[in-house]
Amino acid sequence: MNDTYSTDGDRPLAGITVVGLEQAVSAPLCTRHLADLGARVIKVEAPGHGDSIRGYDSAVGEGLSAHFTWLNHGKESAALNLKSESDMRILSNILANADVLVSNLAPGALGRLGLHPDELVRRQPRLIVVDISGYGTGGPIDHKRAYDLLIQSESGSCSITGLPGQPVKSGIPLADVGTALYAYSAVLTALFHRERTGKGAVIPIAMLDVAAEMMGFALNYVIHTGTEQVPVGMGSPACAPYGGYPTADGQTAVLGTTNDREWQRLTEMIDRPDLAAEPRYARNEDRCAAANREAIDAEVAKWTGERSLAEIQAAADAAGIGNSRLGTVRDLSTHPQLAERGRWRQVGTPVGPVPALLPPAVATDWAVRNGSVPGLGEHTDAIRAEFGNAEFGDTPTSA
Amino acid sequence: MNDTYSTDGDRPLAGITVVGLEQAVSAPLCTRHLADLGARVIKVEAPGHGDSIRGYDSAVGEGLSAHFTWLNHGKESAALNLKSESDMRILSNILANADVLVSNLAPGALGRLGLHPDELVRRQPRLIVVDISGYGTGGPIDHKRAYDLLIQSESGSCSITGLPGQPVKSGIPLADVGTALYAYSAVLTALFHRERTGKGAVIPIAMLDVAAEMMGFALNYVIHTGTEQVPVGMGSPACAPYGGYPTADGQTAVLGTTNDREWQRLTEMIDRPDLAAEPRYARNEDRCAAANREAIDAEVAKWTGERSLAEIQAAADAAGIGNSRLGTVRDLSTHPQLAERGRWRQVGTPVGPVPALLPPAVATDWAVRNGSVPGLGEHTDAIRAEFGNAEFGDTPTSA
Repeated sequence: MNDTYSTDGDRPLAGITVVGLEQAVSAPLCTRHLADLGARVIKVEAPGHGDSIRGYDSAVGEGLSAHFTWLNHGKESAALNLKSESDMRILSNILANADVLVSNLAPGALGRLGLHPDELVRRQPRLIVVDISGYGTGGPIDHKRAYDLLIQSESGSCSITGLPGQPVKSGIPLADVGTALYAYSAVLTALFHRERTGKGAVIPIAMLDVAAEMMGFALNYVIHTGTEQVPVGMGSPACAPYGGYPTADGQTAVLGTTNDREWQRLTEMIDRPDLAAEPRYARNEDRCAAANREAIDAEVAKWTGERSLAEIQAAADAAGIGNSRLGTVRDLSTHPQLAERGRWRQVGTPVGPVPALLPPAVATDWAVRNGSVPGLGEHTDAIRAEFGNAEFGDTPTSA
Repeated sequence: MNDTYSTDGDRPLAGITVVGLEQAVSAPLCTRHLADLGARVIKVEAPGHGDSIRGYDSAVGEGLSAHFTWLNHGKESAALNLKSESDMRILSNILANADVLVSNLAPGALGRLGLHPDELVRRQPRLIVVDISGYGTGGPIDHKRAYDLLIQSESGSCSITGLPGQPVKSGIPLADVGTALYAYSAVLTALFHRERTGKGAVIPIAMLDVAAEMMGFALNYVIHTGTEQVPVGMGSPACAPYGGYPTADGQTAVLGTTNDREWQRLTEMIDRPDLAAEPRYARNEDRCAAANREAIDAEVAKWTGERSLAEIQAAADAAGIGNSRLGTVRDLSTHPQLAERGRWRQVGTPVGPVPALLPPAVATDWAVRNGSVPGLGEHTDAIRAEFGNAEFGDTPTSA
């Protein structure tokens, strides 16, 4: 039996219109997930180059970078010049008919466009406005630009990733993705609340606050113990043994223990019951100490180094020890666990259909929309016809 | 002006009851955020040791690890023995009065408890059930245990983090946190949908699918170019220059460019307009090539190495170049941008109040609940009194 998803089930967000004044990752991933569930998403882009992430690379086509293609299927693209009065009038008309505005423009940009969130919701009390910034409002650095790496660094996330003296950035843009998911859940909370009360909402989200929330374990550890944890490469400072171990067939087995019962089982698995009897290894907290961790890791690596990945995984499964393998991105792209469960769909792009994954969290009787990735301004004419009047002409307000 | 949050505003999830058959990180973070916004969350724990993450360390107190304290404030803890008929009867009564069940028990465990999600929703059509697993249902590895590191490894996330030949795990448990946030948003979608249709939902979430979604950029890059990207430490394979650079005062400045216009400005900032004229550096895609990246990084590092962090940040701000500093966890715990914006609260624990951050995404007129971290079974008696009848006695069904 596979996970099943209806293609003709309910679309929970049908009838909801979302406007994205958006760029890069955080706001676009939020609105993509709203589109996945049936919302109409109008992405406003600058004429000319559009969302700057279109041009990071040309993996899928010109203006269709790997990032952009991931983040924008199911949306309409309206190329509007927000310095022109007539295009701002079109945007106003779109907003007047919208349920949700999600923005991650630079700090203060919404206000400069005459779209201050408080003012928008005062005029249109059912509107939900999500205003993403790097650092919120107030404090010494609220004026600063924020990109994923900048927030990963500023939040200490890089300092707990990598090896001692060699901090690194998580390859997954976790500050961006986390912000997207908090924005997404905030919109959904506000829609639920509006359904009950009729009220809209202004929701400011600071990327630093998101990263700080995700740092909760490390933060509590430092606050309560006074000790900064040392990054342990493929391992976790919270558990030992736990990490990547080389196998006889040149792969890396990933396995370990998250509690003392699993430790007992692991010592049996690697034929070293004597280790289970060692008092210094009895408690997870003690096994995490550097010298103990290294000694135990060497014993585990000795055992894995004499076996193939398949043998190791079979033994670990039998012993009830969590295990996986260290895979590449290519491995993920062909992973049987995604393919055999039917997780891939095709979505359209201006250069033809491309593979895309189903969103990760969908009820079994909801439909998922596999909409297309828009070309820059692909829907401008239709949106002008629906919301504006092209004959106003294009008069720049600042010229 | 600071971000402001009402303490007596609306609680969007007031009146919603959530049951957590939960452990570790993913389900607990999901339900904590539901509690933050006013839902009643009943956390079911095994008598004895409870949620195993209580014992990872004793940073805050016995049974109050740094993880547990982060993930569980605002919940009630009911210690129930799910192998006993009478306690299962109490759980059934709780569920009969609940709106949401969130579970991340081992694969198949819900079914073995007689709580198969489809069956629960058939009997109680308004119930929303989120069933978190490592790998979903179907496919070759759906039986396998899944912890954060195992999913980070299996999904290729570690392979794009670190340095060539030296993959590492993200310190932030991104597979767990991402799963929590997709579970959280799925509950909110389902509540909105139920408000409109009266229907509950069964929502299966696989951690591998979550990680694969977060890998969207890397996946598209490999699928469309056939090339596996090389991890670049503190940098991003998508942009150059972009990374951490040592300063004259022993810190690490983090800065870089995300497009060609910023590159032009950066060359002026570091007094190297000649670099801007080099055709091989003109396009971001070309600057990302290893040899070009290294050459440019060396020039940037030469400039930062002669200046203090403060000088560098002032110059970068003036030039419109995003910048931050590489901070530690301790720096985050005392970060003025969190403190001055009033992001810290106190929450109770069995050993006294501890600091906790406000949740990252709250509307300006919603109230946030700063509930306490429960001791194991702190609310068992009250919950037995409310939902059960202790005189049934404690008869194990499997003995």
